[in-house]
Amino acid sequence: MPQRPRGTRDFAPAEAAARHTLATTFRRVFERFGFREVQTPTFEELDLFTAKSGDGIISELYNFEDKGGRKMTLRPELTAPVMRMVFENHAFDPKPLKWFYFGNCFRYDRPQTGRYREFWQFGCEQVGAGTPLAYAELIALGDGLLDAAGLEGRTLSVGHVAVLKAAVDTFEFDAESRGAMMRAIDKGDKDAMAAVATAKGGCEAALDRLQLLMAAPDVAAARHAMADAGVDAELDELESILAHLQNFDVTPQLNLGIARGLDYYTGPVFEIHCDALEAQSQLLGGGGYDLSGIFDAKPLPTMGFGLGFDRTLVALEAEGNLPEAESRLDVYLGALGDEAAGVVARAATKMRSHGLRVDLDLMGRKPNQIAKAADAAGARQLLILGARDLESGECQVKNLSTGDQQTLALDHMVDWMLEQSGRAAFTDYN
Amino acid sequence: MPQRPRGTRDFAPAEAAARHTLATTFRRVFERFGFREVQTPTFEELDLFTAKSGDGIISELYNFEDKGGRKMTLRPELTAPVMRMVFENHAFDPKPLKWFYFGNCFRYDRPQTGRYREFWQFGCEQVGAGTPLAYAELIALGDGLLDAAGLEGRTLSVGHVAVLKAAVDTFEFDAESRGAMMRAIDKGDKDAMAAVATAKGGCEAALDRLQLLMAAPDVAAARHAMADAGVDAELDELESILAHLQNFDVTPQLNLGIARGLDYYTGPVFEIHCDALEAQSQLLGGGGYDLSGIFDAKPLPTMGFGLGFDRTLVALEAEGNLPEAESRLDVYLGALGDEAAGVVARAATKMRSHGLRVDLDLMGRKPNQIAKAADAAGARQLLILGARDLESGECQVKNLSTGDQQTLALDHMVDWMLEQSGRAAFTDYN
Repeated sequence: MPQRPRGTRDFAPAEAAARHTLATTFRRVFERFGFREVQTPTFEELDLFTAKSGDGIISELYNFEDKGGRKMTLRPELTAPVMRMVFENHAFDPKPLKWFYFGNCFRYDRPQTGRYREFWQFGCEQVGAGTPLAYAELIALGDGLLDAAGLEGRTLSVGHVAVLKAAVDTFEFDAESRGAMMRAIDKGDKDAMAAVATAKGGCEAALDRLQLLMAAPDVAAARHAMADAGVDAELDELESILAHLQNFDVTPQLNLGIARGLDYYTGPVFEIHCDALEAQSQLLGGGGYDLSGIFDAKPLPTMGFGLGFDRTLVALEAEGNLPEAESRLDVYLGALGDEAAGVVARAATKMRSHGLRVDLDLMGRKPNQIAKAADAAGARQLLILGARDLESGECQVKNLSTGDQQTLALDHMVDWMLEQSGRAAFTDYN
Repeated sequence: MPQRPRGTRDFAPAEAAARHTLATTFRRVFERFGFREVQTPTFEELDLFTAKSGDGIISELYNFEDKGGRKMTLRPELTAPVMRMVFENHAFDPKPLKWFYFGNCFRYDRPQTGRYREFWQFGCEQVGAGTPLAYAELIALGDGLLDAAGLEGRTLSVGHVAVLKAAVDTFEFDAESRGAMMRAIDKGDKDAMAAVATAKGGCEAALDRLQLLMAAPDVAAARHAMADAGVDAELDELESILAHLQNFDVTPQLNLGIARGLDYYTGPVFEIHCDALEAQSQLLGGGGYDLSGIFDAKPLPTMGFGLGFDRTLVALEAEGNLPEAESRLDVYLGALGDEAAGVVARAATKMRSHGLRVDLDLMGRKPNQIAKAADAAGARQLLILGARDLESGECQVKNLSTGDQQTLALDHMVDWMLEQSGRAAFTDYN
């Protein structure tokens, strides 16, 4: 019997509604910042991702050959596809491009708590500006997204990978030790960092510099640590970004130890972590990069970030800040007998045409069953019409939150429901 | 150099916005009818679709083995996954379930005009009611979706596959001829129908009956054609659905020749075609079916429909009824000099916090370049702040639709923009 594939999820109505609410919030924030939504295919040529990340990534991919023998893969992330779209069809569009996107990504690894084989990401790319003001706006956008989502405890950190790499270059490592050091930095593992330095030997000064840089509370301290390291321009850039961020009402921490795991960042980088989560606390990460080499194109300053959609929901839940479900129905209607059923269907049609959310009993059930269904559906009002109501020309409506009952003239049933819903102006609802 | 996979699409901002607008319209209509959104994974076990449609479907699928050797496929449609979800985790939920969904589907066939390898479908399933009233509401929903989308010329047809199958059974065909006849009916090809009947021989009465049924303008005519065929209950059901549809303000055509191509429909069926399209004019199709057999479950009356999202956009475009793009930005801001840039960034932050959509020059461009960017962005207002404006405490704002210029006090810049946007009450915007 077919079952849901391992590591994937079905979203039932309540969860799907919470997800849709959060996605709508995120879309509005992107739009307030002048970003526009784009969409790319769910699968791409395998080469797109191996060109960016090397063949090692294949073991984590849902890759396959299509019936024409082409090597394809379900996308593991969204930056490479969007930049493929930029270089393929939008290379000569006026810059900067400010694009955001929301899509599913796929990763073949062992399913574990909070990690799924199909997962959702928001993200954006800002192509062609490359200025400190552009970085500041992008970082403010990232913080603004999580603020609008209602996430209270979050830590925004800003760094610069070119400065960090210069500090690592001081060691004059071979490739292997350099990799080991970068991994230790990425994990923030000070013991491992010291061990790599000790193994090489004669690196006391370099290790001091690196530790000083990673602990630098402000750019002045970083300048002190990196004196004569040839990164004055990068530190100027960082200082300018931090100054612009004040105007955007955002005050990040400086963290020059941010390595971002990914090799492709080249400039300023930033992360936002959720304070309420211990493991997998990073919700958002991004920075400056340049993928033009993959597309045989001229260098193009690009910056962007990814925002874990599933993880944001986990974070909001950990804080008790998941968006509350609105009442999903304005009214639930029932009818006793064929004639009443006709009146109810016509009333439902009118209410719906004015934008009300209306459900009705479809199975000819008894009043207590109808009331139970209305409760389960989270309806605001319940109205069950019987033969006697048709005779008297009046009916009873019950407010399911307060329990109040009220008598209505049948002729005014629809108008009354419209008033109750607080929707006086309907013309723009559609 | 990696390219977009054949038969797939990228959606640039203008097109993505039109798609998002239509999707939002559809979601609201589903919600007005008391339907709730659900979501299933992008890939499923291959068995799910072969159990429903036979092994023949494999040649049209994007199927693959995952790294654990499991046979998987990108979903070619959404009904089987949603019913898999129902039987796997929601079999005992209170009925009826009224679920809708919006998702991408995949089909490996030759790309051609309007047919893509990745395409989008809306759809819904209504599980557990099975009454004529439920069918009528479902059909009214289908019609209501395309009405809300703004599609003017459309034809809604309702039929009943059990009645049609009874007419075909009159021929006492072997399996092969029966299949040939069903295909001829599905295509509405009268010559092919006559040819299949003639090949068998002795079928004049049966062919007369079939042709009479397919041409029946009302249920009375269908009753006449199918006298003594044992389908009185089915014709009663159809008559009742049509009566209920009057209450929902929907008047379909009767078309008892609807075969729906798919073998799995068992009851009433319906289709909506776009009058402005010749080929691939069917936008929506559905009916009553029962997939419980695939899941070793008890019979469960189920009805649903699929709505081609891409095709609806093609249809709206053919009618010249594509939703018009709204102005996407309330204001575009520029600054000349560092001090002005700070004022502008702070103003942008305030406006955005009140829900305005604001873009700003990030590249320190000249006024004429900023104005060009604001035009390209479709901004309503343009405001460029210079050093002299900071001295005078006033600035110029230009309405880009009317060309009107106006002088504003800097202190009132934000409030004025809020007023202009017609958003007096902002608290619920977020």
